[in-house]
Amino acid sequence: MSRGLDYEVINENVKRVAYAVRGELYLRASELQKEGKKIIFTNVGNPHALGQKPLTFPRQVVALCQAPFLLDDPHVGMMFPSDAIERARHYLSLTSGGLGAYSDSRGLPGIRKEVAEFIERRDGYPSDPELIYLTDGASKGVMQMLNTIIRNDKDGILVPVPQYPLYSAAISLFGGSLVPYHLEETANWGLDINNLRQSLNEARMNGITVRAMVIINPGNPTGQCLSEANIREILKFCYQQKLVLLADEVYQQNIYQDERPFISSRKILLGMGPPFSKEVQLVSFHTVSKGYWGECGQRGGYFEMTNIPLKTVDEIYKVASISLSPNVPGQIFLGLMVNPPKPGDISYSKFVTESKAILDSLRKRAHIMTNGFNSCRNVVCNFTEGAMYSFPQIKLPPKAIEAAKKAGKVPDVFYCLKLLEATGISTVPGSGFGQKEGVFHLRTTILPAEEDMPAIMDSFKKFNDEFMEQYDDKKGYSRM
Amino acid sequence: MSRGLDYEVINENVKRVAYAVRGELYLRASELQKEGKKIIFTNVGNPHALGQKPLTFPRQVVALCQAPFLLDDPHVGMMFPSDAIERARHYLSLTSGGLGAYSDSRGLPGIRKEVAEFIERRDGYPSDPELIYLTDGASKGVMQMLNTIIRNDKDGILVPVPQYPLYSAAISLFGGSLVPYHLEETANWGLDINNLRQSLNEARMNGITVRAMVIINPGNPTGQCLSEANIREILKFCYQQKLVLLADEVYQQNIYQDERPFISSRKILLGMGPPFSKEVQLVSFHTVSKGYWGECGQRGGYFEMTNIPLKTVDEIYKVASISLSPNVPGQIFLGLMVNPPKPGDISYSKFVTESKAILDSLRKRAHIMTNGFNSCRNVVCNFTEGAMYSFPQIKLPPKAIEAAKKAGKVPDVFYCLKLLEATGISTVPGSGFGQKEGVFHLRTTILPAEEDMPAIMDSFKKFNDEFMEQYDDKKGYSRM
Repeated sequence: MSRGLDYEVINENVKRVAYAVRGELYLRASELQKEGKKIIFTNVGNPHALGQKPLTFPRQVVALCQAPFLLDDPHVGMMFPSDAIERARHYLSLTSGGLGAYSDSRGLPGIRKEVAEFIERRDGYPSDPELIYLTDGASKGVMQMLNTIIRNDKDGILVPVPQYPLYSAAISLFGGSLVPYHLEETANWGLDINNLRQSLNEARMNGITVRAMVIINPGNPTGQCLSEANIREILKFCYQQKLVLLADEVYQQNIYQDERPFISSRKILLGMGPPFSKEVQLVSFHTVSKGYWGECGQRGGYFEMTNIPLKTVDEIYKVASISLSPNVPGQIFLGLMVNPPKPGDISYSKFVTESKAILDSLRKRAHIMTNGFNSCRNVVCNFTEGAMYSFPQIKLPPKAIEAAKKAGKVPDVFYCLKLLEATGISTVPGSGFGQKEGVFHLRTTILPAEEDMPAIMDSFKKFNDEFMEQYDDKKGYSRM
Repeated sequence: MSRGLDYEVINENVKRVAYAVRGELYLRASELQKEGKKIIFTNVGNPHALGQKPLTFPRQVVALCQAPFLLDDPHVGMMFPSDAIERARHYLSLTSGGLGAYSDSRGLPGIRKEVAEFIERRDGYPSDPELIYLTDGASKGVMQMLNTIIRNDKDGILVPVPQYPLYSAAISLFGGSLVPYHLEETANWGLDINNLRQSLNEARMNGITVRAMVIINPGNPTGQCLSEANIREILKFCYQQKLVLLADEVYQQNIYQDERPFISSRKILLGMGPPFSKEVQLVSFHTVSKGYWGECGQRGGYFEMTNIPLKTVDEIYKVASISLSPNVPGQIFLGLMVNPPKPGDISYSKFVTESKAILDSLRKRAHIMTNGFNSCRNVVCNFTEGAMYSFPQIKLPPKAIEAAKKAGKVPDVFYCLKLLEATGISTVPGSGFGQKEGVFHLRTTILPAEEDMPAIMDSFKKFNDEFMEQYDDKKGYSRM
């Protein structure tokens, strides 16, 4: 008889979970790092780990909130600007017991109000703080919504492919079915509504009740920005098919072109008027981990619910209560993100300078990376319009695929492992996100420091040249 | 056809969850507070919310980690002691990217090492950092372990009754079966191994595969400290029955008597030698939210695994990876808790003075509260040996039970609601924790400020007198 935590008898859904972002490649990279090799961790969107400095103002405010006794120190004005001091007092006034006390399980009411005001400014429609729940990062919110929706393996969730594997992992964990819809690489990773309809119909023919649809806008790992017309089509589709739309909008501040600005799903939905605006169930997610903040380690996020019945909202509240409250410092970061310094504030110009420098540099890096990949043999890459990733297709020659098979590896895992060993660049194989049969990619973040970028791309090119030299007989292997 | 988040069609396990700590009483208390009534929130162990001041040293260190630019400020020495500065540098050296970077999903290796050293000092046996996972509070760890163990509703978990409802809630959420074993109120909430065996056998006869057992030591809500002999019996039982022991030891620093000090389950297990020490699967949980820290809002915790196969440990790692990493400031609080200032450090004496004042006062409050309850008509209460709660039995007269029925309320909910309306004291009815048929309790924390305690107990007594006056015909209603 097995003991309760023997591998053979643990929850099969746990075993079924795959999570490539921290999978085989990451584990091998960690090993190599321990052995003293210099690793460039571009496997996860973790800007501070690659040298991005935190914005000063929010850190000043949270430091003061952590050490409220500093507010009474006569020297405080020598180390902190007065608007940071004032803002720290403001956030402390929203808590009862400071950062050491559990908040309401939905988050501090005062911060949820700040989020609602931000959403109203962004979208032009009022937002209700009672329908905004703060979370320990956006992932926790996504997991909570999927757990609420999924009942069994006949419940399906439409997920883009390629996708951020949070979705596939969470759907496995909760025992549901992932219903993939393919993004079109040749159309700049666009979403074709006919594809979507076909995926839905196929799933239904297989006895799946499709209950929700995920969009990631801007895309992860694919970097595209959805157009207003496209989102409108999606919302109509969700209305017709009675699907909850889960809108992962965590990269809404990460936009690197001017043609297609970010527009929230909610703004478009409410602009469509009834019946859509009154009927489509929408949950949208945001975080302090991305944007120009990159405060991943603080674990702050929120989700906002539209057209969700109050009885369901109450159930979500109840389940959130089990783990008492999201971390309070992360909530304050979120408040600061949605309510940053304003013109006229002492810290305003510094804040704007710092933010702009980060975003401008990310834009440059997006270009350097895309161009770098496109200059490599057998590599093609769409431009990163938004988010933090580059997702080049690697046209692996048959000999490489064969060598991978011999090594017992998926071909793109084989390629990425060799890349890691040769250069220290830690990426995630495309198979971790899903891709069409016989097509291979890798995902890398665009986050290495701007000054390191040329050397990294040179190192990649050199590796890729040697790899192709070894495995590619056809010198003129065609571009897509 | 319903939409995906319509109440009728959401996950039934979500609906089945009950979580009384933030249930009807809490919601009513929040309403009353909004209406301007002064509420004493004793429903949840949230010390800072009731005025407990944070310990200075850890807050200094974390503030410096949040604002590392302060370390270069020439004035830093005027506001921070040198050991706090040094410690902040230490923790920053353990991260790559400071508090804004995701850590490894198990937590920062350097802090897991500090935890392992703490456990070794505490127990006298070495501990392996690779088997220690940091979490956003202990609850998240408990939920992760239960999710790993539970496969379906035929999997049972032995849980003490009364219990902290995290366990019942999480078991419902993951679709398992709670197998209750009763603690003996007349034996100071002791655990009788024959009771335990009987519960196990009954469950097995009903087709349940019992896979794990929970103990809460010191007890929540019951406040008892388990004896060494008792824990040894439990471990033998788990060995014989092949049960995982989930040891909730979050109150290990909260001890208010000298007869029965806290001894960890792990220390006893390893002291028992083979086969026990090599076979019994044990997971123990700890947190920064309790003890004299009370840093609930920071969400820092850990679990340590003993005798869990490596393949299962890897699965747990994989699932932890989905939400990327526990919050990093909370990890640093945990590091500070397990590695506090030492004799000779500049901050040592202040740290000890602050800690001792909190623990001494909690000990006094435990007495004031127990004595207060025992001086009330129809109320009996075991002494709070440890943890943070008082769990008096309220002997509700038949007329009160009848009145409750008429009002459509469970009798102890009826009593607690009336208490709340009359006095502003927000408690949790015993039915939220489980209790024997026909017996009624309430749980209150012992956390109101020491100076407020006499007035609160007076106010309780006055309410209870009036309540009993109204509903109790038998003047001499017998004590237990």
